[in-house]
Amino acid sequence: MKEKLPPVAELFSPRGVAVVGTSPGDKYSFANQVVESLKEAGFPAIYPVNPKYTEVLGLPCYPSLRAIPGVVDHVVVSIPAESVLALLDDCAAKAVKSVHFFTAGFSESGCAERAELESAMLAKAKTGGFRIIGPNCVGLFVPSSRLVNSIGVPLEPGPIAFISQSGGHAQNLPYYTGPRGLRFSKVVSYGNALDVDESELLEYLARDPETQIVGAYIEGVKDGERFLGALEKTAARKPVVIYKGGTTEAGKRAAHGHTASLTSSVAVFDAVCRQLNAIQADDMDELIDVLVALRFAGPLPRGNGVAVVGAGGGPSVLAGDGMEKAGLRLPNLLPDVQAELRQFLPMAGAIFVNPVDATNLVFSEAISATMHVLGKVSEVHMLIYHLGFHPISRWGGGVLSSAAFLQPVVDALVESQRATGKPILLALCPPPDLDGMKDFLATQQAFVEAGFPVFYSLDGAARAMARVVAWNQA
Amino acid sequence: MKEKLPPVAELFSPRGVAVVGTSPGDKYSFANQVVESLKEAGFPAIYPVNPKYTEVLGLPCYPSLRAIPGVVDHVVVSIPAESVLALLDDCAAKAVKSVHFFTAGFSESGCAERAELESAMLAKAKTGGFRIIGPNCVGLFVPSSRLVNSIGVPLEPGPIAFISQSGGHAQNLPYYTGPRGLRFSKVVSYGNALDVDESELLEYLARDPETQIVGAYIEGVKDGERFLGALEKTAARKPVVIYKGGTTEAGKRAAHGHTASLTSSVAVFDAVCRQLNAIQADDMDELIDVLVALRFAGPLPRGNGVAVVGAGGGPSVLAGDGMEKAGLRLPNLLPDVQAELRQFLPMAGAIFVNPVDATNLVFSEAISATMHVLGKVSEVHMLIYHLGFHPISRWGGGVLSSAAFLQPVVDALVESQRATGKPILLALCPPPDLDGMKDFLATQQAFVEAGFPVFYSLDGAARAMARVVAWNQA
Repeated sequence: MKEKLPPVAELFSPRGVAVVGTSPGDKYSFANQVVESLKEAGFPAIYPVNPKYTEVLGLPCYPSLRAIPGVVDHVVVSIPAESVLALLDDCAAKAVKSVHFFTAGFSESGCAERAELESAMLAKAKTGGFRIIGPNCVGLFVPSSRLVNSIGVPLEPGPIAFISQSGGHAQNLPYYTGPRGLRFSKVVSYGNALDVDESELLEYLARDPETQIVGAYIEGVKDGERFLGALEKTAARKPVVIYKGGTTEAGKRAAHGHTASLTSSVAVFDAVCRQLNAIQADDMDELIDVLVALRFAGPLPRGNGVAVVGAGGGPSVLAGDGMEKAGLRLPNLLPDVQAELRQFLPMAGAIFVNPVDATNLVFSEAISATMHVLGKVSEVHMLIYHLGFHPISRWGGGVLSSAAFLQPVVDALVESQRATGKPILLALCPPPDLDGMKDFLATQQAFVEAGFPVFYSLDGAARAMARVVAWNQA
Repeated sequence: MKEKLPPVAELFSPRGVAVVGTSPGDKYSFANQVVESLKEAGFPAIYPVNPKYTEVLGLPCYPSLRAIPGVVDHVVVSIPAESVLALLDDCAAKAVKSVHFFTAGFSESGCAERAELESAMLAKAKTGGFRIIGPNCVGLFVPSSRLVNSIGVPLEPGPIAFISQSGGHAQNLPYYTGPRGLRFSKVVSYGNALDVDESELLEYLARDPETQIVGAYIEGVKDGERFLGALEKTAARKPVVIYKGGTTEAGKRAAHGHTASLTSSVAVFDAVCRQLNAIQADDMDELIDVLVALRFAGPLPRGNGVAVVGAGGGPSVLAGDGMEKAGLRLPNLLPDVQAELRQFLPMAGAIFVNPVDATNLVFSEAISATMHVLGKVSEVHMLIYHLGFHPISRWGGGVLSSAAFLQPVVDALVESQRATGKPILLALCPPPDLDGMKDFLATQQAFVEAGFPVFYSLDGAARAMARVVAWNQA
């Protein structure tokens, strides 16, 4: 029996990974996806395990963990729940550090025998000297260690950590936010939290030098007191944004069926977050928007005053409504500021009051001049530039998103942000068709590469910035 | 002087259209876009007008309206405000029925002279016997008459009318909703509402046999009493959904600068809509979702009970939370219903409580069986099937959105809707990259062609259905 269990800090850079339950026949299986994505990422020591095969996906396949010649620190398990206890004896014999169970159907199934099985698993881990991640989750994504559990996600490391009780959210987040520039230090899907849980992960992330921003999707907290301490420690050092799933009766019921979580009262969780200055998000989209704001809206605005700039009267009215509903303030512009704007914006089809709308606000000169004027207004703490996409922008051979057209706009915004000292945010509305998406993605890429936060709606930008400003001022 | 002005009913099928202010040099101009899109739509009699040119975009160009040989019923104007009065004399001489001014810079500019110019224009229209649309708008889109004002919009007619004070919203709506299956009888952008206004348009749409559903984007109402009567008449016959722009101070300021609208009190507008049973939307996205629900969610649900079905625990918790926050109810499933589901859904990784989540809920057999069981629950009035997109669904050569995989799912849902008599709604989450979008668009198209309402998020579906159920029960 081992003296000491490895702390989570030791789980993120395994020397060898065994994948138990992979098979050549089942092309959709999670185990096969893990093998394939480890291969794509160039992970050096991947060991498929299945007694039925000698080769899987071009790699030698081993009949058991014990038969693997090299060091195995981490084991990914996707076999039926009935077979897991025997496997854990092998894990102890192989002296692994961590076992991740994709396998589900434990306490969350509501079946008493399966909850007992979970307890037996935990006992085996303690005596065997290793940690359990899950069960019922997708485990670890650590780009800097090439430890990957999904294809289609960006492999460059970055400063954001995300811990999630949902495997779906853990796989979706890096995929959905990749084009917006988010890169990750660790993404940990921990499912039923039988062993490794949200508190231990937060405690680790508070000190992790690779992590500057922490996101969390939590359904239920395992140990309230420990969680309070962990959250306090982490939020004191780094921004922490949490989406708490299961805030309604139906959501709670689903969370219990999903990860056996008994969700706490919404009011209590709200109060805790307010007191410890953790940022709460109402759903995953908002959590993503807040991460983007924290990562790229720098320096963070010192107040909630915003100026909105772009072409289009309807969108501008919508922007005015959306910003104020979300809790930002759009200061009206004094006559002398309006007069300055009128020097380079046309009278016809323009709005000068904030939102500022003019037909020439797709050209770099007009954008730059407008940003400089608005940046001087003391009540304006941040500037939003919005852009829609429509086939008419491609008509006549001109493409607003072509590099020739776009780069001067990007350069103008970079210069304006530097000159005004106020963050500039982008709101780009995704179009509904393939040609539009091509323009959209090129435009987004240009802004992201220049270091700007890109939001997919004015409302989304407003809600995220209202959260971030409140956090920054607390 | 003419005895009688043409009613708006006479404006939607012009025999000839003159476009004043088009020129070969300015490839981005609105006038050129109109000429080009009329050509694309096959409109038979297009007359560019500009004294400087003899040919524009391959068509003969005329020096003046009077010089046009054929009948001209409708005139599209994009020339500087200073020149419009002389043009209106020509319109009278040519005996046109309607003049649409794209030209802006009138009352909305806040300039007194320009407001006076508007009054003079209206006087000329009354003596000249024609109607004015706008100024400061994009005018008419009437697919059945091939009268088109934008490229990239679906040209088949359909049962939806949309009136809009914003030209941007009027051009965006058909483009953004085309892939979701919305088709239009008339889209009227009416800008400053100098002559043709929201009340007259509503009165017309109440009786228009081509229109079954009415959407409206309104910043300010010109004549409150007439508007009440018009809305009452229309809402009594057809569903009417309104997004009222300018509900906050910033939004009101923008609306005044946009179309010179003095927006009424939010509370008054809310009360009017409730009393007359018009559906209010909080923004354009919600307006679109409500239109999609009204068009395709048939027969409309008789209550707000919903069952949510799909693969993914995280999304299911999110769905539970989102649905109840939006005002729908997710009835819990009784043990016997759960037992029925357990016969064909696996225990591992599944949730049986509503939301119902299981890994095999991407296959037609499991989907069909689940829908049949849930459809029998009396408290369930509608069924939502949700589907995410991720590169892992393409891995191993399998594509969830391939026709071979997708068509059985579509067929199963068509059959389930018929068998249960309860509407099935789709929530498809758009992916962030080009490959993902290809899958997404193929999937969306299959569901739309089968007649289903497609929403882009569970929240969006929930909010729209809550609005529609409340309307349907009133």
